[in-house]
Amino acid sequence: MKVYLDNASTTKVDERVIKKMIPYFKDNYGNASSLHEKGLSAKKAIEEARNIIAISINADSDEIYFSSGGTESNNWALKGIAFSNRHKGNHIITTKVEHKCIMESCDWLNKQGFEITHLEVNNGGLVDLEELKKKIRKDTILVSVIHGNNEIGTINDIEKIGKICREKGVYFHSDACQSFLKEKINVKEMNIDLLTLNAHKIHGPKGVGALYVRSGVILNSWQQGGGQENNMRAGTENTPGIVGFGEAVRLGLNKEEIEKMEKLRDKLIEGILQNISEVKLNGSSGKKRLCNNINLSFRYIEGESISGMLNQHGICGSTGSACSEKSLEPSYVLKAIGLNHEMANGSLRLSLSKETNEKEINYVLEILPKVVKKLREYSPYGEVK
Amino acid sequence: MKVYLDNASTTKVDERVIKKMIPYFKDNYGNASSLHEKGLSAKKAIEEARNIIAISINADSDEIYFSSGGTESNNWALKGIAFSNRHKGNHIITTKVEHKCIMESCDWLNKQGFEITHLEVNNGGLVDLEELKKKIRKDTILVSVIHGNNEIGTINDIEKIGKICREKGVYFHSDACQSFLKEKINVKEMNIDLLTLNAHKIHGPKGVGALYVRSGVILNSWQQGGGQENNMRAGTENTPGIVGFGEAVRLGLNKEEIEKMEKLRDKLIEGILQNISEVKLNGSSGKKRLCNNINLSFRYIEGESISGMLNQHGICGSTGSACSEKSLEPSYVLKAIGLNHEMANGSLRLSLSKETNEKEINYVLEILPKVVKKLREYSPYGEVK
Repeated sequence: MKVYLDNASTTKVDERVIKKMIPYFKDNYGNASSLHEKGLSAKKAIEEARNIIAISINADSDEIYFSSGGTESNNWALKGIAFSNRHKGNHIITTKVEHKCIMESCDWLNKQGFEITHLEVNNGGLVDLEELKKKIRKDTILVSVIHGNNEIGTINDIEKIGKICREKGVYFHSDACQSFLKEKINVKEMNIDLLTLNAHKIHGPKGVGALYVRSGVILNSWQQGGGQENNMRAGTENTPGIVGFGEAVRLGLNKEEIEKMEKLRDKLIEGILQNISEVKLNGSSGKKRLCNNINLSFRYIEGESISGMLNQHGICGSTGSACSEKSLEPSYVLKAIGLNHEMANGSLRLSLSKETNEKEINYVLEILPKVVKKLREYSPYGEVK
Repeated sequence: MKVYLDNASTTKVDERVIKKMIPYFKDNYGNASSLHEKGLSAKKAIEEARNIIAISINADSDEIYFSSGGTESNNWALKGIAFSNRHKGNHIITTKVEHKCIMESCDWLNKQGFEITHLEVNNGGLVDLEELKKKIRKDTILVSVIHGNNEIGTINDIEKIGKICREKGVYFHSDACQSFLKEKINVKEMNIDLLTLNAHKIHGPKGVGALYVRSGVILNSWQQGGGQENNMRAGTENTPGIVGFGEAVRLGLNKEEIEKMEKLRDKLIEGILQNISEVKLNGSSGKKRLCNNINLSFRYIEGESISGMLNQHGICGSTGSACSEKSLEPSYVLKAIGLNHEMANGSLRLSLSKETNEKEINYVLEILPKVVKKLREYSPYGEVK
């Protein structure tokens, strides 16, 4: 049996999305900047996708800029705001549990002379709003807080964070790659100035994302060239990718699909906690956890071994986030929520999708205890019950 | 009849490329950074594509970095070299006929304190090698010269330029988006340090490109994050796009296809010059012109009107390059080769592909003279024979 539970890394592209994209490879393949019919039909399709995405977060169409993905959007948001607002200040606030591309962009900005404050989070991975208020200074130009955490699934209260930032007159950016479509996002009500979205976490194609930029926000352009994306992000538009992104958003996730994921997630969590000893659920509980996220630490064994052995049984999971899997260091996110080196190293992330079914969950509940038992028999930490 | 002659803007994706891509949307959709089987199969496909592309320009696989397209690669090459070599100097040499994204990146760098020299070109659009030699200074860190010009099709002698740069100890970058597969490129023999390639001009997908960076060249990374592309360009790999790019390169262009394009190009040029008065072929002749490029200036009428009316007859061409079509200014490339405002405004680019056939060329030869005649009847410049 094959069970794919690494949907926080990336998802299968929906058949309906592929079907929608194909004509833009074969027939309507024009350059959207061209003025002839093939260009205009590409342009039209792009604007339709832009509109669908705008509506999904209550933005205006001209506030959506397409990019090559979440990493580009996050880099752009941070660096674009930093350099366009340097005259106002050089202080940026983020957290200790952001996606790697936010962490690394901040490190890069730090080398360019910006001062970065990384907010602590609580044991569930949540930002403390009082702490945030205290850290905002006169020279703070940007606050960037992840919406749904990519490793532990914790959902920050971005509406409250947005309110604080707006009151203090500081730009607020959020990375919503994991939460998009799973959690309600209303950029106007939530006072969000910049929002990162991407397609491949929502059954759309890889290589395309978007940055929402509130009208009126002063942001530098990302790359220079032919004036695409209203002179903000040059380069021939990736029409099939954008069309697929739009279709993935149009299909969305309905209430039933979200509830199904929550139910299966909870069944899997409960089954694991009941049948395996010395295991801890990382992240927040209940409503503050993404509907598709499970993150566990197994004492005495390494996450890499667990996911490796699960893979031998046809189950795809991950240890840490895929982006930092190559690193030997344990996850900085798990360390930030207070896990020691051993528990952080023993982590496994299982992430569901709308396609995950009960049979698959039952299979994992059958295999995982055996895998953990076997690995613990070899554990260098000695014998475990 | 529908005739697509805007292949310098973008090309139809080859059916075989689409076929190769589809499994990476549907089945092998894993994140190439993941360690499970779905990740590893994506990774393997990416490395195969990288290898195909490397071989096609006589590079090593680890000298090929994937990007989101030609514009990103060009931005990256220029800005990446500029900032990583600022300690050596702040002078960059380019030409007056580069793609818009090189021009704009240079303008941007100029604002960051870099000094830019734009080499003049001759009436055919060629860089003068003696002029280049003279302009290289002790503080010159980079020379960027386009290989095959996107508007007028002129092919620069990048082997000689590479030799000059290597002798002077200056990095040499070339934008080969238009020439790739049409002209031989051997980065080792030609002393090329950085080379921009993309997929959508060669019947591959939009949204994917590459930058060749010679081993040993000191270049800053483009965007920060999860360590992809050997820590040089973060972001989840666009596996289907990369696989499609690789397949497009593997399919390549054979000698017959190139000769067919040259033959049809020459037939179209000769037919136009014979049957329409007051028309000028822009760019170089013979071997120094891309096999698929035609650029013409029609006196007394505007290129936009010609391409608009051709479009009504089902013929897609372009005026100037697609990327700058929205601008009201006449092409800076045509001005750089000595055209006056009127002739630059009256330009039409027709660009062929391997799929262009004789029937289509005959149709254009039937329609174009009528279109020009009709437009000249309305010309504000008065009556024309």
